[in-house]
Amino acid sequence: MNEIETPALILDAAKVHRNCRRMRERLAAYGVGLRPHVKTAKNVEVARLALGAPVGQITVSTLREAEYFIAHGFTDILYAVGMVPGKLEHVARLARGGVRLGVIVDSVEAAGAVAASAAGHPESAIHALIEIDSDGHRAGIRPGDPRLVEVARALGPTLGGVMTHAGDSYNCDSTDGIRRVAAREREAVVACAGELRALGLAASIVSVGSTPTATFSDSFEGVTEVRVGVYVFQDLVMAGLGVCAVDDIAVSVLGSVIGHQREKNWLITDAGWMALSRDRGTARQAVDQGYGLVCDAAGRPIGDLIVADANQEHGIIARRDGGAMDFDRFAIGSQVRILPNHACATAAQHDHYEVFEGDKRVARWTRVNGW
Amino acid sequence: MNEIETPALILDAAKVHRNCRRMRERLAAYGVGLRPHVKTAKNVEVARLALGAPVGQITVSTLREAEYFIAHGFTDILYAVGMVPGKLEHVARLARGGVRLGVIVDSVEAAGAVAASAAGHPESAIHALIEIDSDGHRAGIRPGDPRLVEVARALGPTLGGVMTHAGDSYNCDSTDGIRRVAAREREAVVACAGELRALGLAASIVSVGSTPTATFSDSFEGVTEVRVGVYVFQDLVMAGLGVCAVDDIAVSVLGSVIGHQREKNWLITDAGWMALSRDRGTARQAVDQGYGLVCDAAGRPIGDLIVADANQEHGIIARRDGGAMDFDRFAIGSQVRILPNHACATAAQHDHYEVFEGDKRVARWTRVNGW
Repeated sequence: MNEIETPALILDAAKVHRNCRRMRERLAAYGVGLRPHVKTAKNVEVARLALGAPVGQITVSTLREAEYFIAHGFTDILYAVGMVPGKLEHVARLARGGVRLGVIVDSVEAAGAVAASAAGHPESAIHALIEIDSDGHRAGIRPGDPRLVEVARALGPTLGGVMTHAGDSYNCDSTDGIRRVAAREREAVVACAGELRALGLAASIVSVGSTPTATFSDSFEGVTEVRVGVYVFQDLVMAGLGVCAVDDIAVSVLGSVIGHQREKNWLITDAGWMALSRDRGTARQAVDQGYGLVCDAAGRPIGDLIVADANQEHGIIARRDGGAMDFDRFAIGSQVRILPNHACATAAQHDHYEVFEGDKRVARWTRVNGW
Repeated sequence: MNEIETPALILDAAKVHRNCRRMRERLAAYGVGLRPHVKTAKNVEVARLALGAPVGQITVSTLREAEYFIAHGFTDILYAVGMVPGKLEHVARLARGGVRLGVIVDSVEAAGAVAASAAGHPESAIHALIEIDSDGHRAGIRPGDPRLVEVARALGPTLGGVMTHAGDSYNCDSTDGIRRVAAREREAVVACAGELRALGLAASIVSVGSTPTATFSDSFEGVTEVRVGVYVFQDLVMAGLGVCAVDDIAVSVLGSVIGHQREKNWLITDAGWMALSRDRGTARQAVDQGYGLVCDAAGRPIGDLIVADANQEHGIIARRDGGAMDFDRFAIGSQVRILPNHACATAAQHDHYEVFEGDKRVARWTRVNGW
């Protein structure tokens, strides 16, 4: 590891394998489909580990991700950000040659544009899911809102079903709380699909997803697929929610100690917010991990050492309790590994992963960033 | 602009020109050198505008930036992140063929390693500046600390001078406060250079820098060069400090309205934290701009509309005062432009700029991200 120039993004392949296998086995036991959200890793090798297969159904957050995965042979893709007319031509180009591309809408305007585009491109295989707002946290139509049927009718034959994302699960403070959010998530889409089917409208896809709800939900009845993303890597926010153990976190940022600030009890490293991201997702949790939890080169957390503050290419490492730093342990040039608050945000600051099996570097996997 | 797929990073070339000219003229009037910090734009065209010349002295934050600028003919580069032994071989490779490369150190350990490396590479032209801590905010040696002389002696013939960065200027709440930080910044390095010179040690370079202090300082006496970065673009944090007007901000993120949440008084856009960054730099200022200030397609702020919250590819736009949204003004698919809290962080989320002169797209400029 000390041959790698810092900062760098380290991937522990064994942990990714384990995280992926657990989620696959859990959902398989419930007999519900898995459509991993590839926005976390943005990499085909990780997607294959998630699927346990060379290709499969996936969710993407950008059309660039869709292009990249189509180039790698993927043919069943859901683009899970609200569709706008300006992107429909691009979507139609992607949805040719046997690619089945799903989009999402929550307004009559967008639904009408999708229907018109699909009708104008007979070769394309575009379908649309109606986004349902199951917890008030972002977008979608609330269950019971008459606009659900209006949007479904505007979609015409492109209607594929309904979907929701229980983003509120990130704000829970207990496993029971997550289970309640999961129940609300499932009930919202199952009810909306039922309402459409009662009117004779096709709503075959019933899609839910968030790593916390997928981890703790005790029912997927009526759900056809689960979209989950961050579980492949896990992170400190997930650990704070009880979704994983700190030891499950598969990505870390490798940094070098570049200075000692003895009077301040700080180590300075070259892993600043550019390498860690500005994400402070644990700030609202019971244990605030600063900009990340500091581990030794083997990936074991070091007492209560955190990245207390960050500049662009500088991280300030301090003890959470304000106690004295053991400077002798961290010579200038020695390396530390920093576990991220939010794996999606931290990984996005990098263009590739240095992949390790144990202490052996085995590969370099690239990411498809941008739009 | 409505031909651009969103989200995208928009650069207003006329504003960059104006920001660059102002800083050049200001520093020229004081007779002090300008060594722009290219970490903000990470792009050669912007660096040339900053310098008012095809090449010149620059500051970089990564060795990848150094490589990119060397490939574009730059030969005088300061890498302004504390040097560690593991990067010296890379630095030595870069500092060949007439390239003059500066590094910084604040410990005897790093200084010794730099001196040994330079002695072992007779072709290289590496010099080192000693980092001075002028305001306690990050790294460096405090004025008066006897380690200054120890580090200088350990550097031997590679000693080039001293440098500091007044990062504390970002926390000021008045122009007078910034002037006081600027005076402290200048006095710290001038005093340290004087101490070294009194001992017969060469300290020809006396380098300071931060956009706020460079903008308001009323003396550069004894200073040889000023390193400034974010002024080329400016941002909401700088506007909050009084360093610039909101109208000076040259970068913005173009987003599409993808949904209306009428009950919540929200617009949903496709510019989330992936496009805006997680930076919340204005959170500690008098006016909290959320994740960014919303403008119309021409770049004019729209009342008190801000990005109140952000998910990976979703931005939630709300009125700061909680008032009713004028949904008719923002049809599904219409575009908004979002001014960033922190230009360095927001630009880093993108791999290129869509460059505009007025409402005409004139170029696409790429960034050199990563390490």
